[in-house]
This record gives sequence, structure tokens and C-alpha cells, in this order.
Amino acid sequence: MSSRFEPRDPDWKARCLASFDKQAICKTLGIELTAVEPGFCEMRLPFRADLTQQNGFFHAGMVATLADNAGGYAAASLMPPGADVLAVEFKINLMSPAKGDVMIARGRVVKAGRTLVITQVEVSMLDGGVEKDCALMQQTTFCAMPK
Amino acid sequence: MSSRFEPRDPDWKARCLASFDKQAICKTLGIELTAVEPGFCEMRLPFRADLTQQNGFFHAGMVATLADNAGGYAAASLMPPGADVLAVEFKINLMSPAKGDVMIARGRVVKAGRTLVITQVEVSMLDGGVEKDCALMQQTTFCAMPK
Amino acid sequence: MSSRFEPRDPDWKARCLASFDKQAICKTLGIELTAVEPGFCEMRLPFRADLTQQNGFFHAGMVATLADNAGGYAAASLMPPGADVLAVEFKINLMSPAKGDVMIARGRVVKAGRTLVITQVEVSMLDGGVEKDCALMQQTTFCAMPK
Amino acid sequence: MSSRFEPRDPDWKARCLASFDKQAICKTLGIELTAVEPGFCEMRLPFRADLTQQNGFFHAGMVATLADNAGGYAAASLMPPGADVLAVEFKINLMSPAKGDVMIARGRVVKAGRTLVITQVEVSMLDGGVEKDCALMQQTTFCAMPK
Repeated sequence: MSSRFEPRDPDWKARCLASFDKQAICKTLGIELTAVEPGFCEMRLPFRADLTQQNGFFHAGMVATLADNAGGYAAASLMPPGADVLAVEFKINLMSPAKGDVMIARGRVVKAGRTLVITQVEVSMLDGGVEKDCALMQQTTFCAMPK
Repeated sequence: MSSRFEPRDPDWKARCLASFDKQAICKTLGIELTAVEPGFCEMRLPFRADLTQQNGFFHAGMVATLADNAGGYAAASLMPPGADVLAVEFKINLMSPAKGDVMIARGRVVKAGRTLVITQVEVSMLDGGVEKDCALMQQTTFCAMPK
Repeated sequence: MSSRFEPRDPDWKARCLASFDKQAICKTLGIELTAVEPGFCEMRLPFRADLTQQNGFFHAGMVATLADNAGGYAAASLMPPGADVLAVEFKINLMSPAKGDVMIARGRVVKAGRTLVITQVEVSMLDGGVEKDCALMQQTTFCAMPK
Repeated sequence: MSSRFEPRDPDWKARCLASFDKQAICKTLGIELTAVEPGFCEMRLPFRADLTQQNGFFHAGMVATLADNAGGYAAASLMPPGADVLAVEFKINLMSPAKGDVMIARGRVVKAGRTLVITQVEVSMLDGGVEKDCALMQQTTFCAMPK
């Protein structure tokens, strides 16, 4: 399920970056947008001890936050001018502890509908230079147009 | 699907509170554990502008973080002495913008298995004194015993 | 998360029943629509040995089929005249073996949006006159209007 | 997230095929097991008008049944001798109508734990010789050992 997508908005990149810039949460947590292409987005979150659960690894909520964000902008890249992306729902399997130096989430669109865009997001941990699978998400996003 | 549960650990409450205390993320975000009973847990997160998405509401990742946490301790309350709770997976529907003064997540166990404990979590927003539905989660947790 | 809903279609019931009648799968499997109210639907499937998995219980796919169907018509009951209901996605936890005489699915709308209707479905097994929890679903449905 | 897996049971294939043979549902619906390898399984279901929803396409429940089955045996192939596979939960996005001649589900293990095996399943429709994406599932399975 990989495809090449044609963006519907010539300014898709500027629109995505402007929206990302308005997300206060990303500055607070230290989330970096490291790549965005039509139908694809990568985000990274360097490890911080103050974002951990009881065992000292990234909290599952941080994994979900990064994955939801990467999937959201993968979807947003294919939406028309003026559109805002909203997450309808997501499901995430946490396969291994989020242990390491940098968390990486890569979101890919698997279905670009007019109203709904479906994504899949793979999350990995960069740990001592080695990247290891961490979590897997399926996400449904909604294309909200200005009223 | 509501049930009364008998805890298997006489010290379930102390174990849950000690684990919650070790979650650095909760201090960082301002998450409060406001109730824990056998098979039930409530957590609250007062609004903070630095935890928001592009429209100024709580980011979906914050909704998931609070819900996952409340479901996790609802499950943990029914686990045996020494057990640690891990989230296997969760799915969340974001039904309304997380807009308001305080986010509240209430997790309830719907199936207490020996290895897996299944929960359901309702998330609402307290907005000007009125509580409104915000999100709904189903979660699978794993009872990890010390090796 | 329980609500009273006002149907938007005065003929919601006739529309739901006519749609159900067109589902060949329901006749094939023996699915009965036993109740439909605004925002609610109950369906039943009497046990049949030819619908079982390797241990002689209803296959998980049959549990999902009944639950998806009940959730779908709970949602459809709140849609406008002419609307057709489509499942966008669902997630189901299979909590106990689907063992017994009759499987019952009860779908309830938890959020009735204009485009998307979110439901929750509880599945139980009637076994020797006693009803036992079996599965729990969260479902997102789409309101498709004729073009 | 693709990997090569070493089966833990030298007789993994015979065990999977024997279990599949005991699934009455597969004979009833016409499900064929067309491939099984360590960590992978493909199943097919030729179109039948008596398995359709209100628009004449395969019912979503049939899509879920095929996908759950393919994911289950992908997982079972990696389980130890004597193990039985049970679905804990799954989530499926129905991306396009299940319209065509043959439905194909390909399940792949993404994480092979000792107790839990996580799979991803892609469902497509073969329609006039062309294969088109239809649905995407994430599934959690449980390795049940004889008592």
C-alpha cells in the first residue's frame, strides 16, 4: 500500500509548515518536523527524562503524540488550499519500550479521500545509532474546510 | 458492561500511587490522579496553552496521554502484588475539540483477565462548569510481573 | 456517554429496515434485527456450528459482523432522508469466547456528527439463559448522501 | 517493519493447516488459505452475492473475517508447538468498497512476542484482473498454550 500522490494545493508545504508552527505542544515537548512530502511526514523527538513513564522510557502518550502528529501532516499535505487537518481517531500498538536517544515517527497516507484521509505511522527509537521498531498506528483524519 | 471487582493485591492503592509518582510525564504536564478504586481511575489535566494544537485546544496527543494513563491505573488496580502495567495498544475516537478549563479522563475495566486487562476510558472537558464529552478510548493492558 | 437523540428523518425506521432487508449477508448468516430506536440498534445471531472457528465457538469475524451491523444501523437511524451508512473503521476487543446459544450486539451512538457518526457496540452471549459479556467495539461511520 | 522470522515449531505449517481445517466458517464462506510462511499468511474469498451488504459489495464483516483469519495464521506460524492462536483485538479501516471478483488478505507479523503477536493485514480486491487496495488491519493475537 504505497502510492505516489499529487498534492491538490500548490502551497501544500508552506501550509503544513505554518500549521506546525502554530502547535504550541511541539515547542513544549521538543518535537521537530524533519521531513514532509506529498503523503509523507517524519517527525522526531529527542529523549527527555521529564517525558517518561514509571520505568524511565517515553510515556505511551508521547509515542501517540508524535505518531498522531506525523500522520496528521502526511494527511494535510494532500488536502486542498485552506484545509485544516483534524484527527478523527487513531489506534496504536506499542510493540517495544520507547527506549533510546531519539523517537522517530514516519506517517504515510494509505488512502486519500476527499473528506477522510487514512494514514499509517511507524514509530522507531534510535538507540546508540541503531533504529528499532517501537509502535505502529492507523489513523483516520478529517479534512476541515473554512466555513 | 459494568462490574464490581475484587482487587487481588491488598495494597493495590499504595502500589498504584507509588507507580503514578514515578511518572515524570505527569509532573511535566500537570496530570493529577483524582480517584482510584478497584477497576476505576480518574485523572485530570487543567488547561495549559503550551499543550495545544494549531487551533488552541488540547492536542489529541494530550487527550490520548490522559486517557491512556487513567485506563492504565484502572487496570493496575486489579493486578497482583508486584505487577507493573504496560499498555499493549489503544484506540481513541476524538469526538469534539478538547476545549475548556479541565480535561477529565475516567477509565473503567471491562475485562480483568490474568494476563490482559481491557479498559474503556471516557474523556470529557469541563468548560465553564459544564462537562462535555470529548473522546472515547478502548485499551488493552498487559500485566508484567517481575522476572 | 448516553444521550437522547432526535432523528433527522421522520421515516428513519422504514429507511433502516429497508436497508437491512437488502443485506444478503444477514439472511445467509441468520442475523435478526431485534430492535432499532433513534441512536440504538440490537441484532441477534443464533448459534450455528457452521459459523465457528477451530474451537467450536463463533468466529471472531462473526462477532465483528454482528457488531458492525448493529452499530451501523444505530448510526443510520440518526442520518437524514436518503442517507446510506458506510463503516469507515472499527476496533473490537474480543474479551471472552463467543460461546453460547445466541449472540447479541447492542449498538449505541456516542457522537452524532453531520458527516461522521461514532458508535459503541457491546456484544454478549446468551448461554443457558444467562447473558455474558463477549466483545466491545468502537466504530466510525460515514453518512453517504446520494449524488 | 518487515522482518524474517524463525519459526519456533518445526511443524508450524502442519499445525496451521490442521487448525485452518477445523474452522467450519471457512468452508461455509468459501475462504481459501492460499499461502502460509513463517510470519505471513494469504487467504482468498471469491465473490458471492449472498455475502453482501445493501449495495451488493462484500459486507465489512466479511472483510474483517478474512483479514482476521489471515493475520491469525501469520501469527500462529511463529508460535511454539501445541499453541493455539486467539485474536485479542483488531482494528480495521475500510478504505474502498469491497467490489470485485476475489478478496485477498495478506497478513504479516510486525512483532513476535512470547505471549502476544502483533500483525498487520492488507486487504485488496481483484477486479477484472486488477488488484486494488480495500482495507487495512492492525491485530493483536494471543498465544494460548494447552493447560
